[in-house]
Amino acid sequence: MTSTVPSDALVSLDDIRAAAERLRGLVLRTPLLPLTSADADRPLWLKAESLQVSGAFKLRGAYNAILPQLENARRCGVVAHSSGNHARAVAWVARELGIRAVIVMPDAAPQVKVEGVRALGAEVVIVTPDQRDIRAEELSAAHGMVLVRPYDDAAIVAGQGTVGLEIVEDLPDIDVILVPVSGGGLLSGVATAVKALKPDTLVIGVEPALAADAAESFRTGSRVTWTPEQTYRTIADGLRTTSLGEIPWRHVSRYVDDIITVDDDEIRDAVRRIATDCRLVAEPSGAVSTAAYLHRAAELPATGRFAAVVSGGNVAMAAYAQMLSPAP
Amino acid sequence: MTSTVPSDALVSLDDIRAAAERLRGLVLRTPLLPLTSADADRPLWLKAESLQVSGAFKLRGAYNAILPQLENARRCGVVAHSSGNHARAVAWVARELGIRAVIVMPDAAPQVKVEGVRALGAEVVIVTPDQRDIRAEELSAAHGMVLVRPYDDAAIVAGQGTVGLEIVEDLPDIDVILVPVSGGGLLSGVATAVKALKPDTLVIGVEPALAADAAESFRTGSRVTWTPEQTYRTIADGLRTTSLGEIPWRHVSRYVDDIITVDDDEIRDAVRRIATDCRLVAEPSGAVSTAAYLHRAAELPATGRFAAVVSGGNVAMAAYAQMLSPAP
Repeated sequence: MTSTVPSDALVSLDDIRAAAERLRGLVLRTPLLPLTSADADRPLWLKAESLQVSGAFKLRGAYNAILPQLENARRCGVVAHSSGNHARAVAWVARELGIRAVIVMPDAAPQVKVEGVRALGAEVVIVTPDQRDIRAEELSAAHGMVLVRPYDDAAIVAGQGTVGLEIVEDLPDIDVILVPVSGGGLLSGVATAVKALKPDTLVIGVEPALAADAAESFRTGSRVTWTPEQTYRTIADGLRTTSLGEIPWRHVSRYVDDIITVDDDEIRDAVRRIATDCRLVAEPSGAVSTAAYLHRAAELPATGRFAAVVSGGNVAMAAYAQMLSPAP
Repeated sequence: MTSTVPSDALVSLDDIRAAAERLRGLVLRTPLLPLTSADADRPLWLKAESLQVSGAFKLRGAYNAILPQLENARRCGVVAHSSGNHARAVAWVARELGIRAVIVMPDAAPQVKVEGVRALGAEVVIVTPDQRDIRAEELSAAHGMVLVRPYDDAAIVAGQGTVGLEIVEDLPDIDVILVPVSGGGLLSGVATAVKALKPDTLVIGVEPALAADAAESFRTGSRVTWTPEQTYRTIADGLRTTSLGEIPWRHVSRYVDDIITVDDDEIRDAVRRIATDCRLVAEPSGAVSTAAYLHRAAELPATGRFAAVVSGGNVAMAAYAQMLSPAP
């Protein structure tokens, strides 16, 4: 067990502040960049987590989960299962700290992502998709490796929550914060930080309509699970998790004000606008929050100061080029 | 005359520090982002001026030139000639300060750039290319408008020099700084700041081989002028100035260690690497410094800590998409 709190406890503002202290100098304090073409009565700032060295916010949680267990991690290594930004983040942290890392990846993972993790010095274990969690748990149990879960862990939630802390520090008058949601680590961390500091600020999750398990959970009040056949339809490949984690759900159901959805064409348009207006490379998963601002204004407050977390920028260049300049 | 020093004087570190004070809170203190695929014994950080709200470093000089003349500018407006990032910067500053701006642009300027400046609220005057400077000077003389020169002005040099100040503050052990060069405002400002603070740090200008007037000037020791027919061949449309400015040359010849050149294919490759490794949208002109690091290692120190100024990110999306994903 890597969780640092009892199973029914909530992550606190103090946990998130402790994470911020732990991460100082290790992760980039990412800038808030104005979307220059935003409407005058509802300005938007982008929190550019795509600029983290690993290309996504996941670095925050990974450091915050590993550092308190550094001695164990040094002795036995760390293990994680992921084919995406969490894999890159854990491999990055392990390399920086001089720790052995094993990443369990599904056999369907694109070769470029496998190579990317190997290039960071991590060992890769390929398994069938249904074996991912099991194999990671086994490696942890058999060899004492520190298991770094992608989102269902209090230390991960607290680490990602530092994004919320920074937004409120830099924009104390913020009215609405839009956050991509998949397993819920980022959304629950941000909501926990923001509601403790500024209870009137709205925290709204944004999800692809094609992978809207979190929106359905929020609406029905109980955590539902979609099938991979459903969630794998969206272009937002970082948001295909089939359900919120248990620990994130506890925070989301308590602190989050709404979860809204965007369609894939709206996501592609947001990727373009982020490139032209802010000169940031965003991956589709990272652009959903901006897509909500641009295309779902009717579901959001009509005026106020908005922030959108651009959660990552790891995207294959051929696919990205196509999004920027679609065939006529 | 907008120049704030006598014609033979040099910009000092104090001038640059005063500029930094003036710009505080008005321009983004841009992050230094590691190029993750850099060689281990010569790490590289990118100074991401592409993230400035106007999309380029030019905002610094524009603010620093206009603010000390604010009363005049408020009464009579500002005027500048440029079809590129300087035009956007002056229009941006004027809008922020509530000042009238007139931008003189050549009739060959792409419609998208004209529209971009108009969208910021500036008036555009279209002239033949040979009339640009003349018309801007005339407007200044006739109406008392504050003339904001693109680079041949001490206040502009001091403003751009704040880029150098920030690099040394954030990376005190920096060994080599690579800077794009066109009219020389950025290069001379950075060199002035860096040599005052860290005389042993090398400051090296980088220019397209197809517009290498500054490299030739540096090599021969006298300021040469190329023809527009020559300089307009390069893809780096922000670096087509045909000669260094007189004031920049005075600083470049004194403080700069070398000026090297890169070819257009090397620039395109750097644009791609900056996108994949740092998730930044760079324009070709902004990528020349990274191109030198990647492709001209033999002309640079073999080891040491490098920084490259990514000077801007304003690029048409269709052309950019093609650079990211070239036809096979």
